Amino acid sequence: MQEHMNYTLLCDFYELTMGNGYFQTEGYADQICYFDVFFRTVPDGGGFAIAAGLEQVIDYIEQLHFTEEDIAYLRSKGCFCEEFLDYLRRFRFTGDIWAVPEGTPIFPREPILTVRAPAIEAQFIETFLLLTLNHQSLIATKTNRIVRAAEGRPVSEFGSRRAQGPDAAVLGARASYIAGCAGTACTLADEMYGSPAGGTMAHSWVQMFPDEYTAFKTYCQLYPHSATLLVDTYNVLKSGVPNAIRAFKEVLLPQGITNCAIRLDSGDLTYLSRKARKMLDAAGLTECKIVASNSLDEYIIRDLLLQGAKIDSFGVGERLITSKSEPVFGGVYKLAAVEDKAGNIIPKIKISANPGKITNPHFKKVFRLFDNETGKAFADLITLHDETVDQTQPLELFDPDATWKRSVFTNFTAKELLVPIFLGGKLVYQSPPIAEMRAWCAGQIDLLWDEVKRFENPHNYYVDLSQRLWDIKQELLRREGN
Amino acid sequence: MQEHMNYTLLCDFYELTMGNGYFQTEGYADQICYFDVFFRTVPDGGGFAIAAGLEQVIDYIEQLHFTEEDIAYLRSKGCFCEEFLDYLRRFRFTGDIWAVPEGTPIFPREPILTVRAPAIEAQFIETFLLLTLNHQSLIATKTNRIVRAAEGRPVSEFGSRRAQGPDAAVLGARASYIAGCAGTACTLADEMYGSPAGGTMAHSWVQMFPDEYTAFKTYCQLYPHSATLLVDTYNVLKSGVPNAIRAFKEVLLPQGITNCAIRLDSGDLTYLSRKARKMLDAAGLTECKIVASNSLDEYIIRDLLLQGAKIDSFGVGERLITSKSEPVFGGVYKLAAVEDKAGNIIPKIKISANPGKITNPHFKKVFRLFDNETGKAFADLITLHDETVDQTQPLELFDPDATWKRSVFTNFTAKELLVPIFLGGKLVYQSPPIAEMRAWCAGQIDLLWDEVKRFENPHNYYVDLSQRLWDIKQELLRREGN
Repeated sequence: MQEHMNYTLLCDFYELTMGNGYFQTEGYADQICYFDVFFRTVPDGGGFAIAAGLEQVIDYIEQLHFTEEDIAYLRSKGCFCEEFLDYLRRFRFTGDIWAVPEGTPIFPREPILTVRAPAIEAQFIETFLLLTLNHQSLIATKTNRIVRAAEGRPVSEFGSRRAQGPDAAVLGARASYIAGCAGTACTLADEMYGSPAGGTMAHSWVQMFPDEYTAFKTYCQLYPHSATLLVDTYNVLKSGVPNAIRAFKEVLLPQGITNCAIRLDSGDLTYLSRKARKMLDAAGLTECKIVASNSLDEYIIRDLLLQGAKIDSFGVGERLITSKSEPVFGGVYKLAAVEDKAGNIIPKIKISANPGKITNPHFKKVFRLFDNETGKAFADLITLHDETVDQTQPLELFDPDATWKRSVFTNFTAKELLVPIFLGGKLVYQSPPIAEMRAWCAGQIDLLWDEVKRFENPHNYYVDLSQRLWDIKQELLRREGN
Repeated sequence: MQEHMNYTLLCDFYELTMGNGYFQTEGYADQICYFDVFFRTVPDGGGFAIAAGLEQVIDYIEQLHFTEEDIAYLRSKGCFCEEFLDYLRRFRFTGDIWAVPEGTPIFPREPILTVRAPAIEAQFIETFLLLTLNHQSLIATKTNRIVRAAEGRPVSEFGSRRAQGPDAAVLGARASYIAGCAGTACTLADEMYGSPAGGTMAHSWVQMFPDEYTAFKTYCQLYPHSATLLVDTYNVLKSGVPNAIRAFKEVLLPQGITNCAIRLDSGDLTYLSRKARKMLDAAGLTECKIVASNSLDEYIIRDLLLQGAKIDSFGVGERLITSKSEPVFGGVYKLAAVEDKAGNIIPKIKISANPGKITNPHFKKVFRLFDNETGKAFADLITLHDETVDQTQPLELFDPDATWKRSVFTNFTAKELLVPIFLGGKLVYQSPPIAEMRAWCAGQIDLLWDEVKRFENPHNYYVDLSQRLWDIKQELLRREGN
């Protein structure tokens, strides 16, 4: 797993061929560069994404070093010079990193992490940064959609067995907890990251006993305070629910325990949950909860609740842990500037025939602007690194693509999104406990307008550029766009 | 990464609550059980899947143990008895495992791995077995589709940055190599698993230099024998290809080197590759290869080649490493039998309202049947564990769902698919080197009819049951299906 792992060689091979190239090219090894991580579209057509994975980026940077085994492997590839291999022995990250705290809502085209470092270092860390932020932001973003669909009912992450590898299970459970899951079935995610693990029985438990009732009764005797009985091994309404009611009444009620549950894992969950609810209520088990699972996602959960399903909590597996409907978060890592010998920042832009793929140049800041009356966020503003936003003055924002669309805002608060993580190679940030990240995430999402939270066709939250940044971008486009 | 990792607690929490339950229930702790891993549908509607991940399952079983830290964590959950926690200190896998070798084509509803072990052990390993086999079989299956679409042109795996976590990158690269990729961009996958890593430059390399030509010339000087120049940073046909030609002519040709390449990573790959091919040929660079990348998959590659794209090799990223079109491989782990005190095998079946979800009971074998004239596989036959197939006699097969469909086969060879991996807790299998798995995979796919290999609507390969197994299944359905 992540802890104590040395992921140094988890890099695209071209980071090394380029590194060796910069090393051997006069003036490039120490060339200071700025790279931004940003993404272009929100998965599933949503209105916002959620940043996650920073703690693993920090671990990676802290662990970054080449072992002698790594050096020997690289030498065997026959394309690196000995001086470069020797340099790698002393390789550490010496630069600066700014990033958005985990759990923060993020929007397309704004930097969510910025690196300032010598070319080799800045280039080298690309692969791991992207894969970590892409993966966990993907799962956090998907999870939050599912959690919102459940409208306050707890959602548990059940997907380990369908995750794309061990890390995907454990780190996915971590990201899903930050984004609002109540817990996970993954034991290791609890031990390592504090996402609370829980779970009761599989169908095989029921099959192992001579009959369903005995399986249920035995479980209630063993776990009277956490008895969730899986009622669909044979027939939910004919045997599962009646046997569960019998076991609850015979084992739990005499002990005064009314806190119990059944789980439905197949069939029509609306129909079965409504029937089961009636049967449980008729038996006096009004406090017995109904848990539902089986290939759920935000759309199915929304439909179930619209149809009046009597479900108290959800277990969500493969569609959450792989973000099945859109399993890729397209974060990219793009050169934004270099420094000349005198330390002047020279902005860089990546042109594309597709305007949506043109990058925002320069060393930048991102401000989130909150309306003081409602407390809600109304726009993000990307500025040059040395700009500030004067909250005492009216602020004019304009659409960077349709610049005639302008609005003036007053009575607002501007908060910087990116915080320093590493400065001069030193860690200057302490990741908060995961429960705090989870609370931060929920709180920040509360500050978004509902219009941004629609599953389909949400309002396009404004991400604008300052006039100075916009001017520099236009100048670069004029100069390089031919 | 995988090596030396202790993934013991990478289990669904219910494996532990059930384990503690079996431990405390007279007669269940040592109850011998049989579980099968199988899947129900081939991803992307394909005709076959490819098994992968067994080597990581073996590592997992070998490493399986609870540390004192694990025990302390479990105690803190407040639901396990001290005797069980003490038992976990000595917990090892003592059972038997049979499995299909990696790289083997596999079909729905046949066991690809069978476990025979005491209930607690057999249940406990469920989560890790499923996640590992599901993940790597998913990537191997998707990769093989993409590799077949490329019709002999090399395909490299480029997807680390979009993988679902570090393991997904490295183990995904491993699985993709077994299934036919020529290599990977992931350095660690090469160091750890021997999937050859390669790669040359990113757009940022080109942007770092004063101009594109200088970036290309510098690269050719550094790597004259592996110069693949990325030609789409500014404009492919106006600047990229002309600058590449100039650099090749000035740096490589004087050294007698004609083995070089350009890479296209955006735009219309058919149009650009055909134009670039003409420009390269006109410059006398007929041996210069054209590499294409940019959100490719089997469908796009097939279309590009149908349109006459002049592409010599492909780099495939996110759509391979996440199996984007279908990111879940639905392998399941189902109880097939238990043993009574006398060692008699008692078959178990899991009923479902959906006939496709009904399991095949009992301890079983799988035979693949090859026609001796063509060498091609024509069916798989699932039998009881103590059955053999007599190749000297005509063999009648029948459709297990439509039993009137019967055919008699002669002149065939029957080969068992599952081989022993662990016996009595002892490893009795040595995973072959990865290059051998890759060759095995290619060879076994050659033995399938083309009709099974269509991307859409392939022929349904026969997976039949022996008469004895079919009879037992029907008997169980009669007995339990009410």
